[in-house]
Amino acid sequence: MTLTVGILLYNEVEVLDFAGPFEVFNTARRLKTRQQPSMPPVLEVFTLAETLAPLQARGGLTVQPQYAITDHPPLDVLIIPGGVHAPQLERNTVIEWIRRVAQTTKLTASVCTGAFLLAQAGLLDGMQATTHWEDQDDMQRMYPAVSVLSEQRWVDSGTVITSAGISAGIDMSLHIVRRLEGAELAQKTARQMEFDWQA
Amino acid sequence: MTLTVGILLYNEVEVLDFAGPFEVFNTARRLKTRQQPSMPPVLEVFTLAETLAPLQARGGLTVQPQYAITDHPPLDVLIIPGGVHAPQLERNTVIEWIRRVAQTTKLTASVCTGAFLLAQAGLLDGMQATTHWEDQDDMQRMYPAVSVLSEQRWVDSGTVITSAGISAGIDMSLHIVRRLEGAELAQKTARQMEFDWQA
Repeated sequence: MTLTVGILLYNEVEVLDFAGPFEVFNTARRLKTRQQPSMPPVLEVFTLAETLAPLQARGGLTVQPQYAITDHPPLDVLIIPGGVHAPQLERNTVIEWIRRVAQTTKLTASVCTGAFLLAQAGLLDGMQATTHWEDQDDMQRMYPAVSVLSEQRWVDSGTVITSAGISAGIDMSLHIVRRLEGAELAQKTARQMEFDWQA
Repeated sequence: MTLTVGILLYNEVEVLDFAGPFEVFNTARRLKTRQQPSMPPVLEVFTLAETLAPLQARGGLTVQPQYAITDHPPLDVLIIPGGVHAPQLERNTVIEWIRRVAQTTKLTASVCTGAFLLAQAGLLDGMQATTHWEDQDDMQRMYPAVSVLSEQRWVDSGTVITSAGISAGIDMSLHIVRRLEGAELAQKTARQMEFDWQA
């Protein structure tokens, strides 16, 4: 069985918020394929967005999503990056999609202010969560049903995981690899990326 | 004066190799703009490639370069990421462009196996340099005029800086911000990215 990881993109998404997790899962995929070159792919990572139109990540990087949220392979893991998140909270199509897809994923996770989208979809009600240090007070005010934690690299609430800001998405993604594929592959992935994992 | 940072893209470029530096310089730009909102941009980061055609980074991420190497603003800093680098060593247009542009930049830098492109352009002859731990022996064999170091997060040889693998490009980019814009902005950028800088 292939494990599928979908990363949501949107206009003004923060570059490292999506690129860090993309790198982790793609490196894990390469290392698994190297061990078992004759096997079909056991891990797949791809990007999704509201439509297939190219979009601008923060700072002007233009990225073309691989799938639209209206038509994509089933997702085992859904990752919601942060960035200029406020306009996305108003996109009912996106928020509804997140709520619906999260019912069938193994894990739904956010990086940085991507946690606001999960909270808006109601996925964090009654749960502990975190976000970028600069946005924790805002998030607690906007979503009183969520218990917003500070000083955590990531918060694993079982089916939902939220990480702190920007680069913390790399640490959290390595944690997801560990949970779903084992500690050895997670450690090898960190070493391949020369990343000092705050495991 | 605006400081311009150009990051080269090519087919099968490693995602974090270009996205990490992009995030560092764009975050530094945001923080500088926040301090002096009335000033024109003082730092700019953009991507370049051999042509303006969309290209596939490693793992299938499609990115649209902002400039072609035939027509781009003057560069103060040129960053060459790694990835599937071997085909690029045969691209004379690219290697000649790197050699020519490096004569007028303040700094030319590589991430991971991007060091092979700098070596191919002759920019590392007689210098110390580094690359991904898995590729150091290969690089030493292919470029005996370069002194390839291991166990270094990055190697600063003055006008040329080379970093170790993948995530080390983030540490190196923060070092470049420190050299060109000061330690305070570099520290603030790392904190904004929640990145544990190996300074």
